[in-house]
Amino acid sequence: MTFAERLARAQQSTDSLLCVGLDPDPLKLPKDLLADSHARFAGAAPLYAFNRRIVDATADTAAAYKPQIAFYSALGAEDQLVESIRYIRERAPAALVILDAKRSDIGNTAEAYAREAFDRYGADAVTLNPYMGEDSIRPFLVRPDRGAILLCRTSNPGAKDFQDLLVDGLPLYARVAQRAAGHWNQHGNLMLVVGATYPREMAELRRAHPEVSFLVPGIGAQGGDLEATLAAGLDARGAGLLINSSRNIIYAGGGAPAAIREAATELRTAINRQRAKPQA
Amino acid sequence: MTFAERLARAQQSTDSLLCVGLDPDPLKLPKDLLADSHARFAGAAPLYAFNRRIVDATADTAAAYKPQIAFYSALGAEDQLVESIRYIRERAPAALVILDAKRSDIGNTAEAYAREAFDRYGADAVTLNPYMGEDSIRPFLVRPDRGAILLCRTSNPGAKDFQDLLVDGLPLYARVAQRAAGHWNQHGNLMLVVGATYPREMAELRRAHPEVSFLVPGIGAQGGDLEATLAAGLDARGAGLLINSSRNIIYAGGGAPAAIREAATELRTAINRQRAKPQA
Repeated sequence: MTFAERLARAQQSTDSLLCVGLDPDPLKLPKDLLADSHARFAGAAPLYAFNRRIVDATADTAAAYKPQIAFYSALGAEDQLVESIRYIRERAPAALVILDAKRSDIGNTAEAYAREAFDRYGADAVTLNPYMGEDSIRPFLVRPDRGAILLCRTSNPGAKDFQDLLVDGLPLYARVAQRAAGHWNQHGNLMLVVGATYPREMAELRRAHPEVSFLVPGIGAQGGDLEATLAAGLDARGAGLLINSSRNIIYAGGGAPAAIREAATELRTAINRQRAKPQA
Repeated sequence: MTFAERLARAQQSTDSLLCVGLDPDPLKLPKDLLADSHARFAGAAPLYAFNRRIVDATADTAAAYKPQIAFYSALGAEDQLVESIRYIRERAPAALVILDAKRSDIGNTAEAYAREAFDRYGADAVTLNPYMGEDSIRPFLVRPDRGAILLCRTSNPGAKDFQDLLVDGLPLYARVAQRAAGHWNQHGNLMLVVGATYPREMAELRRAHPEVSFLVPGIGAQGGDLEATLAAGLDARGAGLLINSSRNIIYAGGGAPAAIREAATELRTAINRQRAKPQA
């Protein structure tokens, strides 16, 4: 099955465009985690314990999980990332796993990063930075069953520093999308990161690239507006998006399981309500 | 001591601008490594064993070592990277350690990556990708004793895809240099990656940024010309560069210690010969 087919199947079987970000800050773990009967590993493996709780609470609402590798590698906790992904496969087998790593390098180094994401961690897709150009992305595109998700227009304030610069009248981020979606995407396994904080830009990208799916950060904590994002980014089938939320879900109610479940369910429902409306 | 002072001291005390890249490909390890008396760890820790050999052979010629983290993380060999850096500190205490990671992310994620590079691995500097803008780089610049090394004009073929695009008549890579060297570099701890394969571009960057040091990949295996690179990139003091070589040194003579030593010594000597000439 190709990556595009796996993505469509994940979205259909969960009836969801929701991606849950697994960014477990060790300073913000739920206070009750150590006492939780689920979390018997909590002392030795607190990130894994927290992720188990999140996956248990969202297994029926998430189309994808997106662990941010920095939170594990800062602590030397790669084993907890491996265990968390194993748990997702067991508990939420329909969901995709996106390794958020924003890798960028060339040649045999890029190949090593592809092995890290796809073989060591078994991720379905990995986020990548386009600055180094085609030969830095190619090693992630050669497996049709895995996805390469390119930074395009990100949701942070600094995105304007370079991504918005005009090249012959077109912003750099649009050039990135143009080149990547056109020349690089032979297997249909390329996605773009398009932040929720810039719905006008997202609408332009959707018009230019009706067939490409977007991974959308920036809903919630970063201030992106859900309704505007969906109006701008949904494709003709009412899909084409994975809407990521991290902090607003995993720290809901201080990280209590019921609050996590409710936050995820509410967001999925709000997304699906708008998907049901006729698209412009 | 600031990062700029540490860099200058490393270059002076080793009388060298040479940076040795520690990119140990597990498929290309020296055949005799397991029999080497130095390498009693070779079976369990082959990357570390190979790095010990390289460091032993180059400790008096390298101003810096640059381990490429992908080669360790692809294998789950983070512990061998930690051990390799510990060994560099012991055997080559004057040399800087540059973690080649090309990280790019924002906010608390960038802070986690800074902890990975500077605290977990104890690196003196880390390579970074500028695409996400100022807030993605800031967390790496706040420690004046550590360096942030930004991709500017890289040495690979794909560099032209985006880095060379003209923004109001100036290539994107020059905009990156302008903004980073100008606004972001309050502590003088920012360097730029400028590939050896484009000496004309390097000369322009040197004229525009006489005070900024460049990390230079692409000599040797990637075809960069040493003489042209030095003519283009040396600053008024005959420094301002770290010239990286990886494969041409570490696989010299199939990775035999004497051949590694000779390759490193030759490159340092060739660099210093040109440094001794009056600069244009």
